[in-house]
Order: sequence, then structure tokens, then C-alpha cells
Amino acid sequence: MFEAKVTVRLKKGISDPEGVNTLKALHLLGFETVKNAKTIRTFDLLIDRKNKSDVKKDVEQMCQRLLTNPVIHTYEIEIEEK
Amino acid sequence: MFEAKVTVRLKKGISDPEGVNTLKALHLLGFETVKNAKTIRTFDLLIDRKNKSDVKKDVEQMCQRLLTNPVIHTYEIEIEEK
Repeated sequence: MFEAKVTVRLKKGISDPEGVNTLKALHLLGFETVKNAKTIRTFDLLIDRKNKSDVKKDVEQMCQRLLTNPVIHTYEIEIEEK
Repeated sequence: MFEAKVTVRLKKGISDPEGVNTLKALHLLGFETVKNAKTIRTFDLLIDRKNKSDVKKDVEQMCQRLLTNPVIHTYEIEIEEK
């Protein structure tokens, strides 16, 4: 069993409305010292395979087909045996 | 300047509809070896303060007032000087 963490970030220059709104709300609450807010999404997957390199290949495919949009996202994959 | 990362997870037993739907979609795409999918949200904040312990206090307050819902979320804070 492997745990794969896929961290999905927006590429530079791509707007992050959730981050913008979080920043506005923090300012409204008086947290003026916050200069920037970004959001990052992580998928934590539990995968039942024997071989770490197969897991890596599968997760790469999952990123390309479902979890990320290559136009706007960058991603990182971390795999750990459980 | 400090970078604060707030990692927000759902508490055990709290349903994660996005995770459930991700798992279903992965199965539909043929990734049957995925046994569980969870989603994690991270806020990446840039904070202009001099003192790390002030940053920590502020970010704790932000978590309690805006970033997390204590009924359903747990959170972790990591702070790094920039």
C-alpha cells in the first residue's frame, strides 16, 4: 500500500480568486500585515499496488487525466510506502 | 517577512465529498487500485512582521476567525522566515 500526495499549485500569473478573497477578508478582519495569500490543493491518495514505480506512473496519469489542468496548474507528487 | 503555511484537513468521520467524487472519477477512468482519496487545503500567507512569535499568534487567530471551521477541521501551521 502506498500513500501518494499530489500538491497542485496555480502557475505564476494565473489568478487565484480564492486567495484574493482570503486576503481581502483577512484585511477586513484587521490582519493588515498579510501581504499575499495563495491557495494550494492537495490530494491524498491511498493506492494498493506492489511497486513504487508503478504507483508513480499511475499517479502521473491521474494528474494528467483528472487531478490537474496543465494549462493553469503545476503539480508535485510524493509517494510513501504505508 | 514570514511565510506561513496553514494546512487544513477534515477531522476523522467528517465526510469529504470532493474526495469521494475524486475517488469515483478515478475508478471510472480505470484506476481501480486507488482505495481512498482525501483533499487537503493549504493557505500560503506572506506576512510582514518582525517577530516569529507574533506571526504565530496572528495566524492562530486567522485560523480561528476565518481559515478553518473548528467543528470539522484540524489545522497545522508552519512558519518560515523569508
